[in-house]
Amino acid sequence: MKIVIVGGTGTIGTAIKNELSQRHEIIIVGNRHGDFTVDITNDNSISMMFEKIGTIDALISAAGSVHFGLMEEMTAKEYKIGLENKLMGQVNLVLHGIPYLKDGGSFTLTSGSACHDPYRYGSSPAMVNGAIDGFVVGAAIEMPRGIRINAVSPSILDESLEEFGPYFRGFTPVSAKKVAFAYSKSVEGSQTGQIYKVWS
Amino acid sequence: MKIVIVGGTGTIGTAIKNELSQRHEIIIVGNRHGDFTVDITNDNSISMMFEKIGTIDALISAAGSVHFGLMEEMTAKEYKIGLENKLMGQVNLVLHGIPYLKDGGSFTLTSGSACHDPYRYGSSPAMVNGAIDGFVVGAAIEMPRGIRINAVSPSILDESLEEFGPYFRGFTPVSAKKVAFAYSKSVEGSQTGQIYKVWS
Repeated sequence: MKIVIVGGTGTIGTAIKNELSQRHEIIIVGNRHGDFTVDITNDNSISMMFEKIGTIDALISAAGSVHFGLMEEMTAKEYKIGLENKLMGQVNLVLHGIPYLKDGGSFTLTSGSACHDPYRYGSSPAMVNGAIDGFVVGAAIEMPRGIRINAVSPSILDESLEEFGPYFRGFTPVSAKKVAFAYSKSVEGSQTGQIYKVWS
Repeated sequence: MKIVIVGGTGTIGTAIKNELSQRHEIIIVGNRHGDFTVDITNDNSISMMFEKIGTIDALISAAGSVHFGLMEEMTAKEYKIGLENKLMGQVNLVLHGIPYLKDGGSFTLTSGSACHDPYRYGSSPAMVNGAIDGFVVGAAIEMPRGIRINAVSPSILDESLEEFGPYFRGFTPVSAKKVAFAYSKSVEGSQTGQIYKVWS
């Protein structure tokens, strides 16, 4: 298969590449580096990316930023960062990407565990991840031509503990390698409308 | 208790009023009618509403609109309607309302079943409802002074079948009266961070 990984230069993206490149052609898209670049908050940038790459079998997104902060110190402005970037950035990859996916192709988005297993400073991630999961469930039943869509919802990564560990005391970390299996299941399997929770 | 119902003139709001006015002082807020009016997409309007009403025990929101449409016919613009209105409108009621809630007071927001039990034309409601549920889970653990927050997630109402029935064939409807019990549980109970699913 020809598989695009948006956010393919990050920790999760690299693990997905390591897993899937054993069997498939991988195209890495980053916001600054990679085979192609894209700004997922910019419609034109997304359109141009798909035009350049052409028809594909699968689009994986492991991209998107969100604001971490105490709810009481936040306004709508801080919540909108995640809504416009991690949520609508990924949703726009889907909306623009449908015509470029082969029949039976797949989208796999990335959400996260905050909406089920909350942590301090995490009300915006919780909102955004819940929105991504909801969109995937709603969009799956409307996809044309057998196209599938799933989300991978990881908890804190082993690889992120050094930077973020103090915010996740007692949360069992998962390896990026284990998280990558969920993307493989989404792309190489036949399920749709699923949220693959990768946490212990 | 002194309880504000934003969206108190709607079908669900009226049922909540009927249930809670038996035991409590109810203040009805609508976008055009009611004891007070508010535009939940406008920060100043929300601030003014709270200033006029003053300290309260509970804020219930049964307000907010969202776009229904086929995913393939939608762009980011249509998704943003629900994000700015039903999602951030309700979230802004919380962010602005915290200082006006008594210790141990409660917020109760309204989401919906689309993110769990999807229907055609419902990818935007699914996204928005998932976001509201996620926010509630994330915000609950950061609320100051024992303030609680829950969401009520109703399915299609008996009262809405005449208008929306064709979109919900086979979905067991629930009465607004039954949905109102969930708001009572949120306001008059002690739970927090809960999503009360009212569907069969």
